[in-house]
Amino acid sequence: MAVYTEVTDEALGAFLAGYDLGRVTSFKGIAEGVENSNFLMRTEAGQFILTLYEKRVNEADLPFFIGLMEHLSARGVTCPQPVRARDGQALGRLAGRAAAIVTFLDGLWIRRPQAHHCGQVGEALARMHEAGADFALRRPNALSIEGWPALFATAEPRADEVSPGLAKETAAELAALQAIWPTGLPSGVIHADLFPDNVFFLSDRLSGLIDFYFACNDAFAYDLGICLNAWCFEADGAFNVSKGMAMINGYQRLRPLKAEEVEALPILARGSALRFMLTRLVDWLDVPPGAKVVPKNPLEYLVKLRFHQRVVSARDYGLLA
Amino acid sequence: MAVYTEVTDEALGAFLAGYDLGRVTSFKGIAEGVENSNFLMRTEAGQFILTLYEKRVNEADLPFFIGLMEHLSARGVTCPQPVRARDGQALGRLAGRAAAIVTFLDGLWIRRPQAHHCGQVGEALARMHEAGADFALRRPNALSIEGWPALFATAEPRADEVSPGLAKETAAELAALQAIWPTGLPSGVIHADLFPDNVFFLSDRLSGLIDFYFACNDAFAYDLGICLNAWCFEADGAFNVSKGMAMINGYQRLRPLKAEEVEALPILARGSALRFMLTRLVDWLDVPPGAKVVPKNPLEYLVKLRFHQRVVSARDYGLLA
Repeated sequence: MAVYTEVTDEALGAFLAGYDLGRVTSFKGIAEGVENSNFLMRTEAGQFILTLYEKRVNEADLPFFIGLMEHLSARGVTCPQPVRARDGQALGRLAGRAAAIVTFLDGLWIRRPQAHHCGQVGEALARMHEAGADFALRRPNALSIEGWPALFATAEPRADEVSPGLAKETAAELAALQAIWPTGLPSGVIHADLFPDNVFFLSDRLSGLIDFYFACNDAFAYDLGICLNAWCFEADGAFNVSKGMAMINGYQRLRPLKAEEVEALPILARGSALRFMLTRLVDWLDVPPGAKVVPKNPLEYLVKLRFHQRVVSARDYGLLA
Repeated sequence: MAVYTEVTDEALGAFLAGYDLGRVTSFKGIAEGVENSNFLMRTEAGQFILTLYEKRVNEADLPFFIGLMEHLSARGVTCPQPVRARDGQALGRLAGRAAAIVTFLDGLWIRRPQAHHCGQVGEALARMHEAGADFALRRPNALSIEGWPALFATAEPRADEVSPGLAKETAAELAALQAIWPTGLPSGVIHADLFPDNVFFLSDRLSGLIDFYFACNDAFAYDLGICLNAWCFEADGAFNVSKGMAMINGYQRLRPLKAEEVEALPILARGSALRFMLTRLVDWLDVPPGAKVVPKNPLEYLVKLRFHQRVVSARDYGLLA
C-alpha cells in the first residue's frame, strides 16, 4: 500500500455519491505497501479502506480478488469485505483507476514476529486454504515457475550490478528447479503474499488477513513455503526452527499435510525464495518514477534461497517426523 | 507527513504504557507530507496522530510547537491538541526519536481550492494571528530573509541543472530583496506553512489547521503572503485575483491590515515565493536516501516569484483600494 494517484475532493465526492456511506469526514493516504494506492477513509458510516488499483494489477483479475474476499469473509476468515455501491457493484472507477472500498480491519502488523505469531499464521493459512475450496473463480499463478524465466530475462543483464555472480547463480537455480519442480500436489486458492504486513494482530491474537491481490490457484504447500520464508527467518538470515515448527504445526492443526507435500516442501520453499528474489530484483533495477517506496532488497531472498538449497527434508523446518 | 522511521510493536507498547489511552487497535503510517513520520493510531480511547520528529526538526523547538497547539486550541483555533502522558509530559521518545501524540482532527484537505475556501483560510489565518498574541514562547523564523543566503549557497553550484540561468536569477533576486525588505511590521506567531494540505474542510467549511512545525515569530503579512502563494495561483501559474481578493477580505474581516502591511505585501509575497523556491531547490538537489516522497518542483515557485516582481501594489492581489 502506498499512494501513487491523487484523488481530488470533487472526484471523491462524485464516486461516493454512488454509495450509502454518508459524508466523508477524513481521508488519508496510507504509507505502507507497494502495489496500489490506499486511503484510510472515515465516513458517517464508519471506517473504510479505499483502494485505487495501479498499473501492476490486471483489471481482469479484480472480480477474482473482490469475489474471494467476499467468499472467505462469508466462511469465517476475517478479511476486508468489499462494500457494494447502490448499483450492486463492488468495483468502480475513480481518478482514472479501477477502485474499490473495503471494510476497515482492526489490528496491527507485527514488526518482529515470535514463534506464537508464526503458529497463528500457519493456522490462519490452513483456514484460508480450506475456506477457499468451493470458490468458483480461478486465477492461474502468474508468478509461479512458468513466470520466472520472463522475470529473470528482465533482470539478467544487470543482475550482477546488485551482487557479482548473481546472474549466473540465478540461471543455475532456475534450471535446477525446473528439473525437479513437483506437480500434482493438492491445490486451491492460495494467498501467495502472506507477509507480516498482511496479517493483523490484536493483543497478540491474529485478528485478520489483508491484501489478497496476489491470490491465485496453486499448490497449498507452496503458500506454506512463502510463509516460512516471510516469517521464520531472523534478521541475520538464519532460519529459526522454533518458528518454522510453530508455523507447520499451526497449519497441520487444521489441514494435515500429505506425504507428497511434506516431501516437496523444501523445493517449494526454495522456489518461493527464488520468486521473491526475482521480483525484488526487477523492482530494484527499475524503481518507477514517482515511486514513494523504497524497493526491498533482493539479496535478503538470495540468503534464504541458499538456505533452502542445503535443506535435506522438511524436518529442517521444524516438521516433526 | 510520511514515514521515515519504523516503529516495532514492542516499542509502541512500551511508549503507550505511559499514557491513559487503552489498547491500540490500529496503527498505520500516513503517506502525506515530507518532514516527520506520522501514524494514524486508533486506541480504545479514540483516534490520534502519533508523530516521530525526524532530523529536520530541532528538538529544542518542540516545546514551542507543542505549547503553541495547546495555546491556540484553548483560544478556539481548531488544531490538534497534544495528549499528555501520565507524567504530565506531551513529549516522549520512541524509536530513537522525540515523539508526541496529538488528537485526530476530522476533515479533508482541498486538492483544488475555490475562492470561498481561500476566504475561509484568510479568516482562519487572522484568527490564528490574534489567538497567538499572548503566547509566551518565541521562535525566530529560521527561514526568513536572514536564512536565505545559506540555503542559496547550498543550492547555487547545481541550480542551473534544474533550470539554466537559475543561479544568476536567484542571486539577483536575493540581493534585490535584501535591499528593500521591510522591517518593523506588526508581528507575532505565524503558521508559515499554511498550504492546502494543512487546512481541513468538512462539507466546504474550514474545520481545522494542522502542522505547526514551521510556526515562528515573524510579520503577520508575511504569513498572508505565503498563503497567497500557496492558495491563489492556478495550475498554469496564473494568479487568480478572485481567490486573492477572497483571502485578503477574509483576513481583514478579523484583522484589518495596516497601511504599512498593505504597502509591504508585494515584497513579502515575493520573498515568500523565493523562500519556498529555495527550500524546494535544496530538496530537489538532495533527495535523502530512504525518502518516500517525491520532492516538490522548485520551478513552480520561480513562476510565482516572477509574477510578484511585476506586481505594482496589493491591489494586484485583489485588495480593494
